[in-house]
Formats: sequence, C-alpha cells, structure tokens
Amino acid sequence: MTVLLDSVESGRMVADRGRALGIDFPALIEIDSDGHRSGVRPGDPALMAIGRALGEGRGASLRGVMTHAGDSYNCTSVDAIRAMAERERAAVVGCAEALRGAGLPCPIVSAGSTPTATFATGFNGVTEVRAGVYMFFDLVMAGLGVCLIDDIAVSVLATVIGHQPDKGWIITDAGWMALSRDRGTAKQKVDQGYGLVCNVGGVPIDDLVVVDTNQEHGIIADRRGAAIDTARYPVGTQMRILPNHACATSAQHAAYHVVNGGTELEAVWPRFSGW
Amino acid sequence: MTVLLDSVESGRMVADRGRALGIDFPALIEIDSDGHRSGVRPGDPALMAIGRALGEGRGASLRGVMTHAGDSYNCTSVDAIRAMAERERAAVVGCAEALRGAGLPCPIVSAGSTPTATFATGFNGVTEVRAGVYMFFDLVMAGLGVCLIDDIAVSVLATVIGHQPDKGWIITDAGWMALSRDRGTAKQKVDQGYGLVCNVGGVPIDDLVVVDTNQEHGIIADRRGAAIDTARYPVGTQMRILPNHACATSAQHAAYHVVNGGTELEAVWPRFSGW
Repeated sequence: MTVLLDSVESGRMVADRGRALGIDFPALIEIDSDGHRSGVRPGDPALMAIGRALGEGRGASLRGVMTHAGDSYNCTSVDAIRAMAERERAAVVGCAEALRGAGLPCPIVSAGSTPTATFATGFNGVTEVRAGVYMFFDLVMAGLGVCLIDDIAVSVLATVIGHQPDKGWIITDAGWMALSRDRGTAKQKVDQGYGLVCNVGGVPIDDLVVVDTNQEHGIIADRRGAAIDTARYPVGTQMRILPNHACATSAQHAAYHVVNGGTELEAVWPRFSGW
Repeated sequence: MTVLLDSVESGRMVADRGRALGIDFPALIEIDSDGHRSGVRPGDPALMAIGRALGEGRGASLRGVMTHAGDSYNCTSVDAIRAMAERERAAVVGCAEALRGAGLPCPIVSAGSTPTATFATGFNGVTEVRAGVYMFFDLVMAGLGVCLIDDIAVSVLATVIGHQPDKGWIITDAGWMALSRDRGTAKQKVDQGYGLVCNVGGVPIDDLVVVDTNQEHGIIADRRGAAIDTARYPVGTQMRILPNHACATSAQHAAYHVVNGGTELEAVWPRFSGW
C-alpha cells in the first residue's frame, strides 16, 4: 500500500499511524502539475517540508513524487495536450530533482493521464506512467482527438427488449446500471448521449445513440431525432454500446468478457473493484 | 425468473425459448401507466393479444401485470403524486380485470414507484408493491417532498484527505466511484451537487455539499461558494455523504455496513449486484 499525500499534516498522520502499527508506509508526494485539483504546486516550500517530515523517523518513508494532469481532459487540440504533457513531466521531474538536491530519496517519479500519455513527446526523468483509460480508450477520448472510434476496445453488449415505434425508440436491457451515469461527452462537440450504438461486430449503426437511460432500460434513437425503422431491430437483437468513460462503465461490471474481433469468448478477466 | 414483456413478439419469443429449454417462464405483461417509457397502454388491444399468445401453449405462462409510474419523479407536489398513484393503480388493476374478464389468469397485480408507494391513498386490487428507494430514501426523494433529509437511511462514509484553503475546498476519498455519477437533484429546486455533507452522526454540516467529484476524490465546499474554515476539518476527519439516488450510490459498493444511530457496526449486509 503506497500512501499519496500533499501536506505536512498528512505526512505526520501517516507516520504516526505507521509507527503505531509497527510498519513503514511507502509514501509519494502528490504534485499539482496543472492547478486542477490537489497536490503541492512546484516551487511551494511545502514540498521540502513534507519530504523532511517523512524523513524524520519511522512510520512512513519517502519513495517519490506523483502527479496526474487531469486538466488535459479540457484540452481542445493535440498541440495543447502535448504542451500539457510537457508541463506535467517538467513539474514532477523538477520536484524530484529538488528533493534529491536536498539529499532526500526520490526513486519514483510517476506521471500520467491518458491524453498526455498518448501524445507526450518525451518522458525524460519519469519512471512510471499511470494512464487508466489508455488500455481501452472511450468516447470522451475520441471526442478529444486522442483516439478514433474504431480504437475503442470495450463495449456493453445490450439486447433489444422492446420498441416505442411512434417515438422512434428502441428499448434495451442496458440502462445506467450497465452503462453508468457518466455523461462525459455532454459538453464535447459531439454529445454521444449515454453511448454510441454499434452492431455486435462493433461497427456503428447509422446515427444511433443511447439518448436516455433508466435504471435497467436504455433508450436508443437517432441522434438528431430522425425517424428510424424500429422493425429493423427486432426484440432479441444484440448491440454493442461504446461507453463515454471506460472506467465508469467498466466499474458497473464484475468481469470483462474478452473477444478478439469476433463473437467467440476467448477469456473472462475478473475486475478489481473498489478504489 | 419472471419475464416482463410488452409485445406479442416478445411473448412468442419467450414462449419459444421456454419450450426449447423445456421450462415454463412465468410472465408479467408490462403496463404503461404514465406514458413514461415502455409497456402496453391501457385500452390497447395488444394486451389481450399478448395474454392469448402466452395462453396458446407451453414455454411461458401468464401470471399477471406490472407497472412502474416512473413519471411520479417529475411530480412537483404531494397532491400530484397522489393523483399519479391512483392513475398507476387504476391502470394496472383495470388491465388485470380485462384479462380476467376474457378468462385469462392474472393472479399478480404489481405496481409501485417510491413516490406513489409513499403517498397512495389505496392499493385496492394491487397484490404487490415494488418500491426500491423506499427502503432508504435519498436526496431526490427529499427534493420531491416524499421524505425529510432526516429520514435518509443510507450514506457514504468519507474521510478528509486534503484541502485547498484558497479555493475553500475540503478534499475527501469519496469520488464518483463511491458516490456514483448520479446528479438527480441537478434539476430540482435545491441542487445537492454529488451529495449533502453530514458529520459522522448523520447531521448536516452547515451548507456543505460535494460540489464536484473526480474518480477517487470528492470536493466539498459551501453550497453558495462562501468561505469555509478548512482547518475545522483536519485530514482524517470522517463525514457522511447523503446520496442523490440511493440505488446508484449503493450499486457502487459490495455491502452495507449497518449502524443504529451510533457508530458501532451492527451488521454487514452483502448486496445483490447486477440487474
């Protein structure tokens, strides 16, 4: 268990707890590389104070620094993502060098968000890249220009369970319990609703999206409200829904069912759930 | 396993599958009591057609009718909920009587949404009430006037892990993985963000809400952006977050930790997950 912390207060608390338990928590100092959420800003004297607090005794020991450039999700071009990647790298490597310059240990220099991991031009000084969505990609990443729709490697297999022909609705068994409540594309140029609808082979069907969800029902319709021939999708038809956010959608499921381009099940990968 | 269906097509498909498997699926016909999503509308000749299709042979057998007045979530007064409850009851009981009048069996007459279950003035003819949130209540129900904040019986125990004093932020370990992405109060009179913040005893703290979440971080601030003394909530402070939607939030967890007014753990109830 590695502890992340961003204040002297947290460092002391972790060290106290470690001593009480008779263990030595490995600790990383969180660096705020983009002003997005939390962490020590580069240049803040708190960095050295935390490093020294961790060095004072047993209970916790400094292992390095980490950051996550979450603000890369707000970038609107690949150039902006590249610039953010360099800012992320420079922030975390600079802090590592400052700690080492003061004689403190800093073997781990951890960075990564999926956009910056994809477009970074270099990782000089970084020892670890953490990028969660990178493994699957998703509609948010496609909307950011980080991947193509065809690159998305995770989907929810849904089954048509009914229709409302006068409303142009196809109703499926994949509601927000299956897809998650994530609406990450809502503010992007292309709003994908609760997910983009593909055939069972993973190819998008016309302009169908999941326009709304209830707990156990998905409502599929044309993106622009155009009439669709619901009879083309009889009850029992299977469809694949590409998710807005791979993390949120995957977290709704106990395992991944792995296919390799076809429909034959190649493996079942249980998920680690929780956080 | 009871099958819900709302078309002759589905009825035939279920019966075919049942015959192929050598079993007899118990089936309920879904009634659309409020024009909200799916089901057969009262008076639609499809009701009798489905009933007869299920009666034609083995594989599936008619057991009754069911409805869910989901539109009750859009009611803005208790009087409107009462009227919706009566509409829900009348729709499903009327359909049951029509089926029985044609000599078809209809022992189960199932209705229920949490608002209508709470305020219905009568359940004449109803044999089963299904109301999911009813057990715990939540902020959406409080916003609808269905319960008081003090009635809410489920919360997420969060721990303060940091601060951004200049932004007036308290940062916790309960992000949307713990709280869900549900923003059900966003369009209500009082927007509760990602949840209302209480002390560990369950009493709301001033005007603190979870104003934003990341995957594993919750950001707590004053509802109106007023300055708060973050030093009052040191790292390690525990808080309870009341959820927008009890179903969505509970689905993010593997079990309920049961307390009875205090902090002593009385039981752990594993959850049935999936849908």
